[in-house]
Amino acid sequence: MGNTIFGVDVGGTTVKIGMFDKDGNKLDVWEIPTRTGEGGINILPDIAASIQEKMTNQGLSREDVVGIGIGVPGPVDDTGTVHVAVNLGWGTFNISETMEGLTGIPTAAGNDANVAALGECWKGGGKGHKDMVLVTLGTGVGGGIIANGRLLTGATGAGGEIGHIHIDDNETDRCNCGNYGCFEESASATGVVRLAKRMLAATKEDSTLRGKRLTARLVLDEAKNGDKVAVKIAEQYGYYLGKGLAVVASVTNPEMIVLGGGVSRAGGILIDMLKPSFIKYCFPGARDCKFALATLGNDAGMYGAARLVLQK
Amino acid sequence: MGNTIFGVDVGGTTVKIGMFDKDGNKLDVWEIPTRTGEGGINILPDIAASIQEKMTNQGLSREDVVGIGIGVPGPVDDTGTVHVAVNLGWGTFNISETMEGLTGIPTAAGNDANVAALGECWKGGGKGHKDMVLVTLGTGVGGGIIANGRLLTGATGAGGEIGHIHIDDNETDRCNCGNYGCFEESASATGVVRLAKRMLAATKEDSTLRGKRLTARLVLDEAKNGDKVAVKIAEQYGYYLGKGLAVVASVTNPEMIVLGGGVSRAGGILIDMLKPSFIKYCFPGARDCKFALATLGNDAGMYGAARLVLQK
Repeated sequence: MGNTIFGVDVGGTTVKIGMFDKDGNKLDVWEIPTRTGEGGINILPDIAASIQEKMTNQGLSREDVVGIGIGVPGPVDDTGTVHVAVNLGWGTFNISETMEGLTGIPTAAGNDANVAALGECWKGGGKGHKDMVLVTLGTGVGGGIIANGRLLTGATGAGGEIGHIHIDDNETDRCNCGNYGCFEESASATGVVRLAKRMLAATKEDSTLRGKRLTARLVLDEAKNGDKVAVKIAEQYGYYLGKGLAVVASVTNPEMIVLGGGVSRAGGILIDMLKPSFIKYCFPGARDCKFALATLGNDAGMYGAARLVLQK
Repeated sequence: MGNTIFGVDVGGTTVKIGMFDKDGNKLDVWEIPTRTGEGGINILPDIAASIQEKMTNQGLSREDVVGIGIGVPGPVDDTGTVHVAVNLGWGTFNISETMEGLTGIPTAAGNDANVAALGECWKGGGKGHKDMVLVTLGTGVGGGIIANGRLLTGATGAGGEIGHIHIDDNETDRCNCGNYGCFEESASATGVVRLAKRMLAATKEDSTLRGKRLTARLVLDEAKNGDKVAVKIAEQYGYYLGKGLAVVASVTNPEMIVLGGGVSRAGGILIDMLKPSFIKYCFPGARDCKFALATLGNDAGMYGAARLVLQK
């Protein structure tokens, strides 16, 4: 039985490939472009060729390799079947079987946000916890749920896709998904900007934010600097973030929630801001939940993909 | 390796014990009283003695028994530790270890609603589905989540305790848990009665419900009989039930949701009533979810407790 695992994170423009040992030590990392043309037909063969080239260079045989793990931007079920990945041009097919056919190496596949959660649980902010939720706060809100050390994939790979849980009955703006009051409408980076625009229009109060191009980072930085309007926006953001996470925690009872994605770079202030509404809305039996920031950044997907191999 | 499993459902007044084979065939069922006095110190010894008596009568040795599964009314984590079961007088201790000490037989333990979900997934309404949610609509709302065939227990055994997810921002009545707008405030049997009282007070419309003692059963029966006010109440009930289940489905992406508990005896009308708001509020990627009624009734806990042994 080998000791080498390849963890692959397939993005819309770049594929990141990491070489790991079974203990999760990262031995090497490289990137190849994602060729999304022709229905993305070249993506897996390109990855297979790149891994085989690396194996040749390192003098590794098939027997030295435990497996290949692949995270992709689309829903992937427990059998390794992806159910449409728009950004890659992919329809529905079994990634694991295809990759095994190309390489002769056992392959596990998962959704990118889900495997990132597994990565953070293995070697990142959630290390040492077997019941964990990762929420990624970026352009949208994504996530992954780890239950008793294993990914909660769901029937069609949409498990942990928490961006579209309904959290606000009084929201009048429509979410991209067509619903009103989704978690991601308020808790994403886009959500911070939306809340900021609303707040700035509703008050005449002076603010360093006025006249500037609004970004989540600017708003949260100015809140840290003490700008009163920015503080109010940040508090409102924390309210929605805490409320949505309270719902997720009330369903799944995690030991820890890890905050990742671009917005999480604001740091511990986020945790301070979300806690009051988390406590307010969470089922008392699930309230005793820790919070942490993600630590693996863009490497979380590679780590998690590698970990997925060990869970297959 | 033996072929006999004992599945035990511990209630506040009665303990139900079932003898099963590994395929889930129920071979025998009997009951003993639950002695809750003295901090419930006799409950497990009584069960152990009753099982040993049965084994003697059936000529079964320890080697013939795969294990004992126990469901209790309180949160139980993955190690078999119960975190306070008020109705039994229990504090915090490890059920599995205690029972193994008493009998020498491997024991698995879980929360009663959770093991009922496992039972319905094994032999009931959710048979054949590996990603399933059971929601029990009784005095309160309970539930259990099966993810890839296994129970989602959570960090402290509160996984699947979905009765207290927040689903209504405009609710002014307080839930027993201290929050406002919990799922169980509207979706329980008590919730039907609450909605009925509100609706009857708000309208002067004639109704067969007026002057009667309101129960969930009466309201839903009169809705089936075509009473216009009862139909409106039932629709409102379905709205909240569908909305809450949409949140659960958006988090966990089940293949099937099974409705159990007293209210579910109203039958298929419940599924018809909840679907519009389920579709409205559910994340599109998780919307393609089937619904069914629970079929094991009060036996679900015994079946699930037996199943838990096979998952240990």
